[in-house]
Amino acid sequence: MKASQFFISTLKEAPADAEIVSHKLMMRAGMIKRLGAGIYNYMPMGLRVIRKVEHIIRSEMNRAGAVELLMPVVQPAELWQETGRFDKMGPELLRVKDRHGRDFIIQPTSEEVITDIARQELRSYKQLPKNFYHIQTKFRDERRPRFGVMRGREFTMKDAYSFDRDVASAGRSYENMYSAYCKVFHRLGLQYRAVAADTGAIGGDRSHEFQVIAETGEDAIVYCPTSDYAANIELAEALALLPARGAATQALTKTATPSKSTCADVAELLKLPLAQTVKSLVLATDELNEQGEVAKSQVWLLLVRGDHDLNEVKAGKIEGLKGGFRFATVGEIETHFGCKPGYLGPIGLKLPVKIVADRTVAHMADFVCGANEADFHFTGANWGRDLPEPDLVADIRNVVEGDPSPDGKGVLAIQRGIEVGHVFYLGTKYSAAMNATYLDETGKPQLMEMGCYGIGVTRILGAAIEQNHDERGIVWPDAIAPFTVVVCPIGMDRSEDVKAAATQLHQDLLDLDIDVLLDDRGERPGAMFADWELVGVPHRVVISDRGLKEGQVEYQGRRDAEATKLALADVVAHLKQRLA
Amino acid sequence: MKASQFFISTLKEAPADAEIVSHKLMMRAGMIKRLGAGIYNYMPMGLRVIRKVEHIIRSEMNRAGAVELLMPVVQPAELWQETGRFDKMGPELLRVKDRHGRDFIIQPTSEEVITDIARQELRSYKQLPKNFYHIQTKFRDERRPRFGVMRGREFTMKDAYSFDRDVASAGRSYENMYSAYCKVFHRLGLQYRAVAADTGAIGGDRSHEFQVIAETGEDAIVYCPTSDYAANIELAEALALLPARGAATQALTKTATPSKSTCADVAELLKLPLAQTVKSLVLATDELNEQGEVAKSQVWLLLVRGDHDLNEVKAGKIEGLKGGFRFATVGEIETHFGCKPGYLGPIGLKLPVKIVADRTVAHMADFVCGANEADFHFTGANWGRDLPEPDLVADIRNVVEGDPSPDGKGVLAIQRGIEVGHVFYLGTKYSAAMNATYLDETGKPQLMEMGCYGIGVTRILGAAIEQNHDERGIVWPDAIAPFTVVVCPIGMDRSEDVKAAATQLHQDLLDLDIDVLLDDRGERPGAMFADWELVGVPHRVVISDRGLKEGQVEYQGRRDAEATKLALADVVAHLKQRLA
Repeated sequence: MKASQFFISTLKEAPADAEIVSHKLMMRAGMIKRLGAGIYNYMPMGLRVIRKVEHIIRSEMNRAGAVELLMPVVQPAELWQETGRFDKMGPELLRVKDRHGRDFIIQPTSEEVITDIARQELRSYKQLPKNFYHIQTKFRDERRPRFGVMRGREFTMKDAYSFDRDVASAGRSYENMYSAYCKVFHRLGLQYRAVAADTGAIGGDRSHEFQVIAETGEDAIVYCPTSDYAANIELAEALALLPARGAATQALTKTATPSKSTCADVAELLKLPLAQTVKSLVLATDELNEQGEVAKSQVWLLLVRGDHDLNEVKAGKIEGLKGGFRFATVGEIETHFGCKPGYLGPIGLKLPVKIVADRTVAHMADFVCGANEADFHFTGANWGRDLPEPDLVADIRNVVEGDPSPDGKGVLAIQRGIEVGHVFYLGTKYSAAMNATYLDETGKPQLMEMGCYGIGVTRILGAAIEQNHDERGIVWPDAIAPFTVVVCPIGMDRSEDVKAAATQLHQDLLDLDIDVLLDDRGERPGAMFADWELVGVPHRVVISDRGLKEGQVEYQGRRDAEATKLALADVVAHLKQRLA
Repeated sequence: MKASQFFISTLKEAPADAEIVSHKLMMRAGMIKRLGAGIYNYMPMGLRVIRKVEHIIRSEMNRAGAVELLMPVVQPAELWQETGRFDKMGPELLRVKDRHGRDFIIQPTSEEVITDIARQELRSYKQLPKNFYHIQTKFRDERRPRFGVMRGREFTMKDAYSFDRDVASAGRSYENMYSAYCKVFHRLGLQYRAVAADTGAIGGDRSHEFQVIAETGEDAIVYCPTSDYAANIELAEALALLPARGAATQALTKTATPSKSTCADVAELLKLPLAQTVKSLVLATDELNEQGEVAKSQVWLLLVRGDHDLNEVKAGKIEGLKGGFRFATVGEIETHFGCKPGYLGPIGLKLPVKIVADRTVAHMADFVCGANEADFHFTGANWGRDLPEPDLVADIRNVVEGDPSPDGKGVLAIQRGIEVGHVFYLGTKYSAAMNATYLDETGKPQLMEMGCYGIGVTRILGAAIEQNHDERGIVWPDAIAPFTVVVCPIGMDRSEDVKAAATQLHQDLLDLDIDVLLDDRGERPGAMFADWELVGVPHRVVISDRGLKEGQVEYQGRRDAEATKLALADVVAHLKQRLA
């Protein structure tokens, strides 16, 4: 490709609404162009990356035995009403009426449509397992679209759906996709981690997120450097940090802590370690009557160590909180604790409260907690002696760096990541709702076991850049760079030698199927180099008259600190080796 | 590809709603699956064809210097309001509101968005000409979607848009696309014809439709077999069939024609050639007042020969009818002609009527026309003697087979066709509405000259089948067949020899990059052959134990009447030659 036949449009400054580095760099490199909030044109430079990402995904999906089809963007509401998602999904689901007033949706995913296909097409156990996928435009009407392609409204997603005869077979389909995803992200040239994730209402342990490692990632990834344990922070199990509860050594003492309403302030005032304090969090659950009004509320006190944070996903798995909870109101707190927030604790409650202690808290002795009186805390509090045993002991906190790994094989570390893929065992959630059955060997209809597997194609661009950039611009991995090599001739319009050498090198690389761009725009060297460093082409060859006089050209990898002089005759071999 | 890793789903019978052969065959071959009215899933077999079509289009577009990008499906209404299309387009344009109540549309085409990109990105004459295209999902909310992919609501289209500095350069961009389209349709392996088409309000002569020839086509294509004249019937110029007006030889005679209200019936009754009769068509135009109410109406009488048909597009180009016309009401007819329809004519009108005669009618003598009295016609009518010369003589009829070609180089023939592509010079229609300017050499802003170029990707599948099918199924051209070759082993599960030979041939063809499918489903020969004849794979190799005993396999081209026996060792060479 010659630059003169392509479209290159770089910017010195990113627009003001670009908050994160990938968004800024994609705008500056002319990869995307904003059309509306969360809606982008993919400009020629960006589309080349998308196509390469799609190609790698497609190739690994096909190799894994998945079959590609294409489901529509605009889908009739009927199927979405069958599963209830038409009503259950919030305004994120873009709904539209056609000229006849019939309801349609713009697809955010395609579980309903693929299940409809499967229930018609997959009639016998002989046809199973089957895995269908498509790479198609999706729309999610995000409340606050931002970060460019990271949280856009219109985006491209690869979504695959597997259909199996039983749980065991579904497990194999799941493992097959897990393994295909590992190959995809490896081929994309990204540092990633597959982490166990929460399965929500489906249950079971088959849900993994594929996270691209990046300091700027929204998600916290927990892993054990000395084992293969990895989970997202919502799921990562926190063990008790104390092997067993210590004996009481102090007397319960009400201590004045004026205006010290946080554990950190109290610990500082009392000159005690923060790990000796207990944090009180008050939740409430509501029972509704037939009219949907609140008939009765239950107040809950959740206790975590002063240096720990409550994990709301874990809390939501506790019997009694599963149906949904909220933070208690100040009114409820004052009624039950006789005190305003900031000085709450589990000792001497006015009204019955369900007490849930984190595993670590349940093993604490001589701890500090609020005295349910403004400006006072207790020190030397002990379970069994000063207060009854908690109603429940559970894992309700986020793990922290240095916690023991739940597999017992080391201690945990935490990284930031960007979720770009998700494999998920669906069970019979959709097949049951839509009666998607096959006939088994005995002719009896059985529900199909399903899995779904998504990769955010356009999001990968943002994630790859968050992981691979420097102060000059993007540093694409070879596999997904818009061009693998750029040939930069200096003074091509003045020097026939430069023109001939550049043109020949361009052709030689094309003949080897190397994706090369010849920059024949006639830009000054500084502007030309700045453009390609911004765009992030991983390999650059500079051809100048001065160099040619010595039979040399300059090669520079995008991550190299300096250029390397090479004989013109050796440059193709050198590039082949670098690209191998 | 092995059939066991793919998804094949054929039907014996097409569903009842499939009216035309391509729709029936695509449904039966498992290429598409209906999701809603005019909305289809592209099943794996159909998607393979789409991808091949897209590949050919993309390759020729790139070769012609067009640059690919990707514009969104969901587009903000603002740009469509700038050009007025948001309001002007009917219910065909699918409109949707997002969660904030803002208006969006689902793109039917992308003139607005590309013009918005161009006005921001193309600032200087140095950047022109430029041609951008994308291949993307479109939606048109057809009132009556039907014929499968031929008139669907959601479909895939390649749309390209050129931007030029002046009319001459825009002409070159147009010719460039015209020539690229010829290459595309040639490579697709389709019999097609590029025909001149109407330019509507834009004017000029730069609009061509690319029509796939098929007896079942909706469009009539006019061409001259002895020259390169070709136009669609809306545009094809009809010359006067009579060199000059003959002298009057008969007296004007009012003749009873009881209950004979059509030219054909009158000619039969009077034993006169139909070509001696004149057909009267009554139109009306309305002038509106400031309140948008009809202030004044004008009645028009259009005269074409009894064996000719009115061409409404041509009529719409007549001064006075340009602004839009309607057929007159019975009330208006009775007021102006004093007679009910069926016996109308240009002689003896009650009120002023504008008379437009077709070129051929203006040269007629001794003609027959209605007498403006029920059950009576005039014979022997003559211009100038019995009635004044017409207010206007114009080409207002459709050409018919055998008419002289407007280029004077032969006579016209008519074929049926299916429109699959359109190249169109837009001028400054969109650039003016959206102020898309570039700076010329003197730094002065100038409007860009635009062209647009569409190919209906999914429609091509239907058109190709309408052109290429027989009683057994589809007959794909090699270039776009879902598979180029199918290897059909008979009794692969029983015979190791058959299995080994089939597997080896499959691998040998894959190694040559030939798109081959090995049918390892274990179907009986009859069912297997019927499937592949229905699906339309162009080349089939059958491997059986009996054949192998003689070292032979059977080759059959999809259009061949019989199979050819080939030595197993020769089959690869034979296929290479057939595919060359």
